[in-house]
Amino acid sequence: VGVCHAVIHARCPEARIVDLAHNIRAFDIRKGAAAAAAGVYQLPNAVHLVVVDPGVGGGRRDLCLTTGGGVRMVGPDNGVLIPAARRAGGVEHAYAIDHERLGIAEPLGTFHARDVLAPAAAALACGASPDNFGESIDPSTLADAPFPQAAFEGGQFCAEVLEIDRFGSMRLSLTGDELMAHSPGVSALEVALAHVVLTVPFARTFSDVAVGELVALVDASGWLTLAENTGSAYERLGVDSGAHVRVRALP
Amino acid sequence: VGVCHAVIHARCPEARIVDLAHNIRAFDIRKGAAAAAAGVYQLPNAVHLVVVDPGVGGGRRDLCLTTGGGVRMVGPDNGVLIPAARRAGGVEHAYAIDHERLGIAEPLGTFHARDVLAPAAAALACGASPDNFGESIDPSTLADAPFPQAAFEGGQFCAEVLEIDRFGSMRLSLTGDELMAHSPGVSALEVALAHVVLTVPFARTFSDVAVGELVALVDASGWLTLAENTGSAYERLGVDSGAHVRVRALP
Amino acid sequence: VGVCHAVIHARCPEARIVDLAHNIRAFDIRKGAAAAAAGVYQLPNAVHLVVVDPGVGGGRRDLCLTTGGGVRMVGPDNGVLIPAARRAGGVEHAYAIDHERLGIAEPLGTFHARDVLAPAAAALACGASPDNFGESIDPSTLADAPFPQAAFEGGQFCAEVLEIDRFGSMRLSLTGDELMAHSPGVSALEVALAHVVLTVPFARTFSDVAVGELVALVDASGWLTLAENTGSAYERLGVDSGAHVRVRALP
Repeated sequence: VGVCHAVIHARCPEARIVDLAHNIRAFDIRKGAAAAAAGVYQLPNAVHLVVVDPGVGGGRRDLCLTTGGGVRMVGPDNGVLIPAARRAGGVEHAYAIDHERLGIAEPLGTFHARDVLAPAAAALACGASPDNFGESIDPSTLADAPFPQAAFEGGQFCAEVLEIDRFGSMRLSLTGDELMAHSPGVSALEVALAHVVLTVPFARTFSDVAVGELVALVDASGWLTLAENTGSAYERLGVDSGAHVRVRALP
Repeated sequence: VGVCHAVIHARCPEARIVDLAHNIRAFDIRKGAAAAAAGVYQLPNAVHLVVVDPGVGGGRRDLCLTTGGGVRMVGPDNGVLIPAARRAGGVEHAYAIDHERLGIAEPLGTFHARDVLAPAAAALACGASPDNFGESIDPSTLADAPFPQAAFEGGQFCAEVLEIDRFGSMRLSLTGDELMAHSPGVSALEVALAHVVLTVPFARTFSDVAVGELVALVDASGWLTLAENTGSAYERLGVDSGAHVRVRALP
Repeated sequence: VGVCHAVIHARCPEARIVDLAHNIRAFDIRKGAAAAAAGVYQLPNAVHLVVVDPGVGGGRRDLCLTTGGGVRMVGPDNGVLIPAARRAGGVEHAYAIDHERLGIAEPLGTFHARDVLAPAAAALACGASPDNFGESIDPSTLADAPFPQAAFEGGQFCAEVLEIDRFGSMRLSLTGDELMAHSPGVSALEVALAHVVLTVPFARTFSDVAVGELVALVDASGWLTLAENTGSAYERLGVDSGAHVRVRALP
């Protein structure tokens, strides 16, 4: 990470670098994609550099994407960018980054982050246009996202437990915006996961419910989240990341 | 954390941001308060942003404090700022931050760090006066510190084990300044904790005693600390954070 | 760490600070030395501040080293700088840093990083010449490295398992440059460690072999590394850091 910072400082000294998430488990594209989606939601004007890349150096394309909402991202073509792009208006243009156009003779097989992606991010931050980096590619050829977009069927959302944060709050693969678009006046949610069906108040913050009670809220990264006030929803419910969940809005 | 950096960069580009402590366990106000006190001791000229906040969004006040020693801090009104303020000359002025005065329409219930505290810290860093942020409040109404100040009674200090660091050194809730004010010529300490009473040399650094020996010293954050040279005082003594401790200076 | 950043910002505002490695286990000079060697390999133009220092304050010298390759480093005289210096052309000049020449009255016994090394690094970053910091010292008097340099004997290299990274890849104390100097046309390696002898393809990246297969490559920090594509070489081989390893190049 530090070396990527140094590359960016050298190539675009006026860039301000902010670290959003580094403790992604090795090879966990799913978690990286969730973190990237949270990042673009909170910092839409930044250039986003996303690297979780078990297939590095194996011929997989390095991408620069621009979205309908004007977000610019660089990262590998393994799906890690797609949930972030969906959140930011969908992929508008996709380019396969050609390291030679960035002035790099031969990137190291194991470290495209340093040798391809960080230089591309630095160039974007300093105002370069992404169509300078390489050939335009058809967005339909991009690798799939590591988790599906939430579907609205029969009056309810089908989604997944996206991840468990360090407080034991459970993020769902359903955004506050998606929920509101279908159910603007929601005051509680019926949540079905594993073998239980729960009715959970939909609130603004943890402490809108009593200590030890469950609450559903839209967290700072825009995901719908199940949490327990001053406790761990995960320890209480025992349902892991990846589990299916159905959510029905109650008025 | 990254998002708070971005907010500060955007609102006060000339600020230099330094991260002092981020691995505070969820909801651990005690540990956050100890870290904040260490921070103001080492960097009295900085603006300190302190967030450990299980009650976020529940109506708890967001504070800006100034101290007798000229330190400026922002953080929640849950006691986390108080030990730092004590160290820096005591609370001089306290203000309840009004997000509208910072130009923020509606802070997110779960993320006052981003929407209230970081903008206030940025404004202070760029020279704003804290009385612009909100109403002055009576310091006596602030929430209590998560641990009491060390008391000097009957020739000895009554304090607590404040925290165990990653080396197994035990910080006490007693500062080097407090010790020196009562006992300037100290060369050893009688330390009573749990069921043992130890006599420990008071020294300048770990290696002033033999490898494997206990030593008491004032650490870089100003707390009196029990340590073992190249070992773990915690593993040796088995006394946890929060335990009572009595300290008597020996000439 | 944050306090050292603040010291450098104050003393050399134009310096850009990059964090390369902070999760070094307490007192682990070996791991610190490996990280420093990786750092100078990747960022030879930077000033490197290296601190892993169980003997802090005990009279051990604080060093500024310059190398044949033009790298500048500061750190304690406990061997932690030596493998990095070897990589960067060997120690050219060594100076014992005198805190008074940096304008520091009395460094804290337990925090030379803040009071001696960070100020020296800041001065170097702002263009100061290292011979201003203190007396020149004889490089032959420096403390030894925590691990020996790889030896080439009888057609093979004798080295050690240097460290296991978080992916379970095993770095050896043998650099890609050392290997190439003796065996430019290598296509596979015979690796003997513990009770097994393996033949491992020498490749450019993990995915040059099938998922689950072992591969030897030169990693981004320049060390020869044994890895498993999308898996953990460490879990598979069960050989810990410090174990002896013999490496023979196969054409």
